[in-house]
Amino acid sequence: MAFRYPSGKKYAASSASTISSTNKSFGNRGMSLEQDLNETNIYYQSTGQCVIHKKPTPVQIVNVDYPKRSAAKITEAYFKQPSTTDYNGIYRGKYIDFEAKETRNKTSFPFNNIHVHQAEHMKAVMKHEGIAFLIIRFSKHNQTYLYDASHFSWWYFEQSDRKSIPKDDIERDGHLIPEGYAPRLDYLSTIDKIYF
Amino acid sequence: MAFRYPSGKKYAASSASTISSTNKSFGNRGMSLEQDLNETNIYYQSTGQCVIHKKPTPVQIVNVDYPKRSAAKITEAYFKQPSTTDYNGIYRGKYIDFEAKETRNKTSFPFNNIHVHQAEHMKAVMKHEGIAFLIIRFSKHNQTYLYDASHFSWWYFEQSDRKSIPKDDIERDGHLIPEGYAPRLDYLSTIDKIYF
Repeated sequence: MAFRYPSGKKYAASSASTISSTNKSFGNRGMSLEQDLNETNIYYQSTGQCVIHKKPTPVQIVNVDYPKRSAAKITEAYFKQPSTTDYNGIYRGKYIDFEAKETRNKTSFPFNNIHVHQAEHMKAVMKHEGIAFLIIRFSKHNQTYLYDASHFSWWYFEQSDRKSIPKDDIERDGHLIPEGYAPRLDYLSTIDKIYF
Repeated sequence: MAFRYPSGKKYAASSASTISSTNKSFGNRGMSLEQDLNETNIYYQSTGQCVIHKKPTPVQIVNVDYPKRSAAKITEAYFKQPSTTDYNGIYRGKYIDFEAKETRNKTSFPFNNIHVHQAEHMKAVMKHEGIAFLIIRFSKHNQTYLYDASHFSWWYFEQSDRKSIPKDDIERDGHLIPEGYAPRLDYLSTIDKIYF
């Protein structure tokens, strides 16, 4: 699915929809990053480890039909640009906030999927002592990193030479998230290591 | 606007849409609770006091049109029941989570607008040491209370005699939120008093 903003810019319902279907490894059998995170969050919720949810896709509703004896039907609506990240919640008493993105790029993570409002949101979360990060999947390498928002902020706001973060830097400053069956993407164990 | 879930149950786009239009007081000149909170959160964000946002309305998207050279148009979608509360974020390093509801009832706050998932969500947030509460407006009295989720949980889960909370109890255990021009509903000052 590819939606378009009024600007004509492409919208990915899952920001992580460009997965490799030939990927046969255990941890990531052709599932999108968003699907992996949803399953992971359901698992975490069932074990009571944290309360972290994906926010609904922001939609501008223009018209709704009310058929008798059945559900209201939205007949005209448009995608809105999100002003925050997709995921937030609480873990071990701390506020957690992150954006999840997948790229097929082999050598760097391009900025073009992170809106400036989202980058500013993560900065504000850090200022208020929350834990903010990106989960970045390099789908061609089948690697998923937790990358703290402070590093991202530097690349996004402090330098103007590049429009992407080199994979080498994400490897060095980020943390590979362990993959498995349940949870599929054990990002809480990574949070434990880095932030507690 | 009154939407209906597949169950036929009414959905209020703003959970706070039943305002009194004859209300002429300074603090609440015919604005819905949701509008007041949106303005308040914009004000708080502009002053950098907290990062608290309303989540988008959850919608199940069934069909999308892609006209050439214009925005993708959602042509079929349905309202979904929210599994969490409407508002969350961070303030003074703490995770904040709340639901906002308005009632025209003069003597009690009926449960019928709080889904069991939302009540369970607030319980889970408390367990993880977050700050969870309801903002309840009695529109006929033009009073808006912050009411901690622990009190609400007791009424919702621990007793089965009543399907509502008496206003007297909300007055005693809750806290009247000061209203003004900016912020319209100064709930952070109330949080300061109760939780810090």
